[in-house]
Amino acid sequence: MTKNSVTVLGLGLMGQALAGALVRAGHATTVWNRSPAKADALVAQGATRAGSVRDAVTASPLVIVCVTGADAVREILDPVAGELGDRVLVNLSSGTSREARETAARHPGRYLDGAIMAAPPAIGTPEAAIVYSGARAAFDEHEQILRDLGTATFLGDDPALSALHETAVLGLMYGILNGFLHSAALLGAAGVPADSFLPFARAGIDTVAGWLPGYARQIDEGTYPALDATLGTHLAAIEHVVHESEDAGVDPALPALVRAAARRAVSAGHGGDSYASVIEQFRDKESA
Amino acid sequence: MTKNSVTVLGLGLMGQALAGALVRAGHATTVWNRSPAKADALVAQGATRAGSVRDAVTASPLVIVCVTGADAVREILDPVAGELGDRVLVNLSSGTSREARETAARHPGRYLDGAIMAAPPAIGTPEAAIVYSGARAAFDEHEQILRDLGTATFLGDDPALSALHETAVLGLMYGILNGFLHSAALLGAAGVPADSFLPFARAGIDTVAGWLPGYARQIDEGTYPALDATLGTHLAAIEHVVHESEDAGVDPALPALVRAAARRAVSAGHGGDSYASVIEQFRDKESA
Ligand SMILES: NC(=O)c1ccc[n+]([C@@H]2O[C@H](COP(=O)([O-])OP(=O)(O)OC[C@H]3O[C@@H](n4cnc5c(N)ncnc54)[C@H](OP(=O)(O)O)[C@@H]3O)[C@@H](O)[C@H]2O)c1
Ligand SMILES: NC(=O)c1ccc[n+]([C@@H]2O[C@H](COP(=O)([O-])OP(=O)(O)OC[C@H]3O[C@@H](n4cnc5c(N)ncnc54)[C@H](OP(=O)(O)O)[C@@H]3O)[C@@H](O)[C@H]2O)c1
Repeated sequence: MTKNSVTVLGLGLMGQALAGALVRAGHATTVWNRSPAKADALVAQGATRAGSVRDAVTASPLVIVCVTGADAVREILDPVAGELGDRVLVNLSSGTSREARETAARHPGRYLDGAIMAAPPAIGTPEAAIVYSGARAAFDEHEQILRDLGTATFLGDDPALSALHETAVLGLMYGILNGFLHSAALLGAAGVPADSFLPFARAGIDTVAGWLPGYARQIDEGTYPALDATLGTHLAAIEHVVHESEDAGVDPALPALVRAAARRAVSAGHGGDSYASVIEQFRDKESA
Repeated sequence: MTKNSVTVLGLGLMGQALAGALVRAGHATTVWNRSPAKADALVAQGATRAGSVRDAVTASPLVIVCVTGADAVREILDPVAGELGDRVLVNLSSGTSREARETAARHPGRYLDGAIMAAPPAIGTPEAAIVYSGARAAFDEHEQILRDLGTATFLGDDPALSALHETAVLGLMYGILNGFLHSAALLGAAGVPADSFLPFARAGIDTVAGWLPGYARQIDEGTYPALDATLGTHLAAIEHVVHESEDAGVDPALPALVRAAARRAVSAGHGGDSYASVIEQFRDKESA
């Protein structure tokens, strides 16, 4: 039974997951992809194939696009800007705040920028967190359909907010990943398998995760009283990581960067403060 | 009721916690600190104050030292090397592998290097993970006492293993912390409070933590088939973090370092592999 009409442009790994969830939820789903074969499985499940972007766009009041990035979005949609008219465009392609603002400016009042904080298999379940920002009215109008993709959160009117949150989460994720790979390289140089490091890694992750709420409060208040250990104590520990890396022949660039930020913070008078005080070094691009 | 005799040298935040746990567990505990006043509270709880390092060392068959680092350990123990004799020395001061090997060489056969992966309040509970390496016989002899400090794990005969695991955990922890502070700075530049980022941060941390077992297996096997996304896809995401940072006036050094490693891995032919393949860039110090 069809509930609503929705169009999905872009059927890569993520676009296929999005369209599949919409079909399963009972929406009349029109799909289009540059290489048409990627629509085949969806059509077999009940989706309608559009022969052109124009046909795809005019088929539904809600158009979702999920492609590699902002350049691809422009390439696909600029030629059909006239047809978009009053339709709502939801862009779930990754990008930066600047790109989100630029795309929003080309679709005034009817644009939602979204960021998917989940992998394709989670789409269609509450585990898939998707954040949206931009035209509040557009979100309210189509919230029910968007909820069929995952847990939908509206962040605010500034269309940049979704991209901002996405890049913030990514920055954190790559910080963890690189920390883990660096540590695995250190252990590996001494013949210790990465697998045996997992319980220690997990404990370290949980420990730091437990510190973050306190640090977040300090960051928002702008004061950094030492909670667990002082920055001076942390700096001594970071020195060990740098020296251990050098001794093991492992690239010390990552801990050396961490040390440089901590040293600048100590020089700025934060030696007796908490580690959260290092944030001021990130804020000041010139000091890098 | 006294069970065993044990000496604790160094009564900083951690040394006090260690000695306190031993007193509570019923061991005859002798304590010494450079600034004597730090022993007062412990003496009130039942510990015995030693007037000199010599008196402290000769009081027990097991001597635990926990001070700022390897230099302090040497300063304290070199003058009493003769008195140490057959006693077991457990060094819980942080340090590098190289320092652990050097200290072990000065106490052949009777030395355990340990690393405390916990904060002082956890000491004396199973939540305090403490790893040991070095003389297996020394560990077996005193395992019961060591278990009163926390969960004790013997890692192997190489005394460097504890310091190695400690620096590996620290490297990971600072990777997370710096990723979080960088992201908080990004959000803060747009007026978004760090506190509101916490649920997203937590979800990102859990996502990455879920990837680590698979990555560890790949690292140990030396093959990196793409599981979730290819390195090429990750690199596009990392680019967003770099550009977002630049646009926001936030120091892009951390994501730029991450990008440099990912780019080198792509150049080395890993564009279609998993993110774990980046580890090879850390291993090769010269390529940094
Ligand atoms: N996969 C994930 O885990 C995940 C998670 C969160 C966010 N995302 C985001 O979702 C978006 C799509 O990711 P994906 O995993 O689906 O990527 P993908 O599998 O690589 O698919 C890319 C899609 O973009 C299309 N495309 C690229 N350039 C185009 C152009 N110039 N004109 C028309 N179509 C173009 C491709 O069409 P062809 O098939 O014709 O090449 C394909 O449909 C990305 O921004 C990604 O960051 C993905
Ligand atoms: N605190 C933690 O959360 C934690 C966690 C894991 C590992 N650790 C490790 O445990 C060790 C001790 O940490 P802590 O927190 O107890 O540090 P702390 O509170 O700063 O205490 C340092 C201790 O070292 C002594 N000391 C330093 N230099 C000395 C010297 N040259 N001669 C004699 N004594 C000297 C100090 O004596 P004075 O009192 O006379 O200055 C004091 O007892 C460090 O290696 C640390 O990395 C600590």
